[in-house]
Amino acid sequence: MISVEEARTRILEALAATPAETVPLPAGWGRVLARPVLARLTQPPADVSAMDGYAVRAAEATEGARLGVIGTAPAGHPFAGEVGSGQAVRIFTGGLVPPGADAILLQEDAEVAGASVLVKETVRPGRWIRRRGLDFAEGEELLPAGRRLTARDIGLAAAANTPWLTVHRAPRIGILATGDEIALPGDPIPPGGIVSSNAHALAALVRAGGGEPLVLPIAPDDSQAIAEAARAARACDLLVTSGGASVGDHDLVQSALGPQGFTLDFWKIAMRPGKPLIWGRLGPTPVLGLPGNPVSALVCSVLFLVPALDRLSGLPGAAPRTIRALAGTDLPENDRRFDHLRATLEPSADGTPLATPFPAQDSSMMKTLARAEALILRAPNAPALPAGAPVEVIPLGDLGL
Amino acid sequence: MISVEEARTRILEALAATPAETVPLPAGWGRVLARPVLARLTQPPADVSAMDGYAVRAAEATEGARLGVIGTAPAGHPFAGEVGSGQAVRIFTGGLVPPGADAILLQEDAEVAGASVLVKETVRPGRWIRRRGLDFAEGEELLPAGRRLTARDIGLAAAANTPWLTVHRAPRIGILATGDEIALPGDPIPPGGIVSSNAHALAALVRAGGGEPLVLPIAPDDSQAIAEAARAARACDLLVTSGGASVGDHDLVQSALGPQGFTLDFWKIAMRPGKPLIWGRLGPTPVLGLPGNPVSALVCSVLFLVPALDRLSGLPGAAPRTIRALAGTDLPENDRRFDHLRATLEPSADGTPLATPFPAQDSSMMKTLARAEALILRAPNAPALPAGAPVEVIPLGDLGL
Repeated sequence: MISVEEARTRILEALAATPAETVPLPAGWGRVLARPVLARLTQPPADVSAMDGYAVRAAEATEGARLGVIGTAPAGHPFAGEVGSGQAVRIFTGGLVPPGADAILLQEDAEVAGASVLVKETVRPGRWIRRRGLDFAEGEELLPAGRRLTARDIGLAAAANTPWLTVHRAPRIGILATGDEIALPGDPIPPGGIVSSNAHALAALVRAGGGEPLVLPIAPDDSQAIAEAARAARACDLLVTSGGASVGDHDLVQSALGPQGFTLDFWKIAMRPGKPLIWGRLGPTPVLGLPGNPVSALVCSVLFLVPALDRLSGLPGAAPRTIRALAGTDLPENDRRFDHLRATLEPSADGTPLATPFPAQDSSMMKTLARAEALILRAPNAPALPAGAPVEVIPLGDLGL
Repeated sequence: MISVEEARTRILEALAATPAETVPLPAGWGRVLARPVLARLTQPPADVSAMDGYAVRAAEATEGARLGVIGTAPAGHPFAGEVGSGQAVRIFTGGLVPPGADAILLQEDAEVAGASVLVKETVRPGRWIRRRGLDFAEGEELLPAGRRLTARDIGLAAAANTPWLTVHRAPRIGILATGDEIALPGDPIPPGGIVSSNAHALAALVRAGGGEPLVLPIAPDDSQAIAEAARAARACDLLVTSGGASVGDHDLVQSALGPQGFTLDFWKIAMRPGKPLIWGRLGPTPVLGLPGNPVSALVCSVLFLVPALDRLSGLPGAAPRTIRALAGTDLPENDRRFDHLRATLEPSADGTPLATPFPAQDSSMMKTLARAEALILRAPNAPALPAGAPVEVIPLGDLGL
């Protein structure tokens, strides 16, 4: 058996970011930059007013002074002239500070009388002026390659005058559920069979992780069918199978893919739920074979598929984010398999959340997994812990998982 | 001036969830259920094996016993007969436990010899059997109305044999940027003008929050143009404007919308960055008027638009999630406006993250906002705090914001 960490490392080492594509700015949200975004202009492009008021010469704008208003400088409409002695220009937030002026008199500190204003509070030089380049300068790198773009980044790229972005293509993930016993929801269920839940849960998880799922038809437990379906997935960046990864006679993914000249590794991972995992390559396409059990498949996805999606998307890929919590109950000592207890997460008085495992942890219980808010991590051979002891947990709400 | 909390409450009270629509299961991810998902079947539908092994009568499966293997029960292929005295049936995970058997002998505890198996470890009655209905029973409510569906929920709904879901329609959000001075990225920039960053940042934020953005053409600072654009947005669930919400002469959203018989409120909110906010109704369509300043617009969106999107999507809508952090620097006392300091967030030794505000907090600095990982909340009149003091922060990475 290999460790969770070793399995993840081997998976990540075998994957590379998808090639770049050019997308219009609005399509860049959630994608990972393949090339940096450089500022195409200086922002602000000149000194501008930070407030609504009057552009003035500070030396003359002392309390009690009266200044003649000679024009207006709203944002987008620069005043054509210059502010001379005893003069002021009405200005609005974002308006260019006209030549001659060196400060802004706030409108709440000014009293208008006809074509002049009375200064009610002395103005300091430079006050309420945003200097040219305060935000960024032309040519400056604003967003580095390898960054997953947030809504704020899209705003920054727009402000930098960037209509197009070069990003990694969204990874296309083939999803293949195998098994004679499974049927799609609403389809007739064979005797003794169950409804397939993995394909669409995995598809949702792939979407949550920024990938494009391609759900292949269910392949019955038959070498030929599995090999056919797998061929359909050769154009994918990753093929994810579920089922057929165990050690029983009816575990066909290995035997079906093997004879086609595919390089396949089979790992037993020291973890629960989960354990058997297929990893390998089908021609150019990496293959991740998840257990057929839906709970195991989804827990393995959190540990291995989400980091793999990150790597394909252009990020390094890493272990899922964990937070510190307090055990809501006593926890027994753990055996040699890394355990992931399905748990609720509640706020507690001191700010550290309380993670309470569900009493039954059977790996067939999808309802429990769906209701879980966190997975409590129990390292191999972890000692028993009393209620209230600190534990590390993976919060599950993140990213719509 | 009204408080942030009061503004959010008034916005949420004025909004209702969008009407329901029927979507295929895979389209349900991230949507909010308008009707609960009930189990259409019992899972497992009968007693099944939890492991690969042999279905046996526990009373006879004692260490050293030899049992005749009379058939096979893989998942999806029930064994037609009954397990009699001295007999066993080869069984695989998920296979139906045949009549007569009451426990599973693990395959690692069995030694095969021709058509029989030698029991190497005594079997306990009921061992490794998953009882009918262990996960859920037909008719049971599995997912309540009002729940935003995760990938795990999609798996659970599939397992419950649900091909269709009834969810609230994704809210359609009209986005209208106003101003003579703004141009779309790549378009010619007027003299003294700037590139419009709000429309596409807001569109990305709407997508991140599960809405459908409709970006309207930029409206110049002209009553007629704004009124025209606003009319185009009447089919939206919410119209968001940016710019024109200040108190200067060139703030036209109010004056443009007012004469059309629109109910408009104008609020000054005791917050920074931000402050002026328009709220009202354009016929049936609620209107949220954000400041034109991009940093203010985005901070206001985190505080007001994201909760509004939640409410329209079918959730209650609430203040953004906050976490506890430690101040990375001394913080000065705050004035009467609720402040939101742009800050980095670093892990610290004891697990509580360290939130360090950027030295310059000018509300025109988009680069700083994009680089921020959190907003440090500074309540009105909050006292000065030394570095290391606990502070409440809104983490910004969530949901791709």
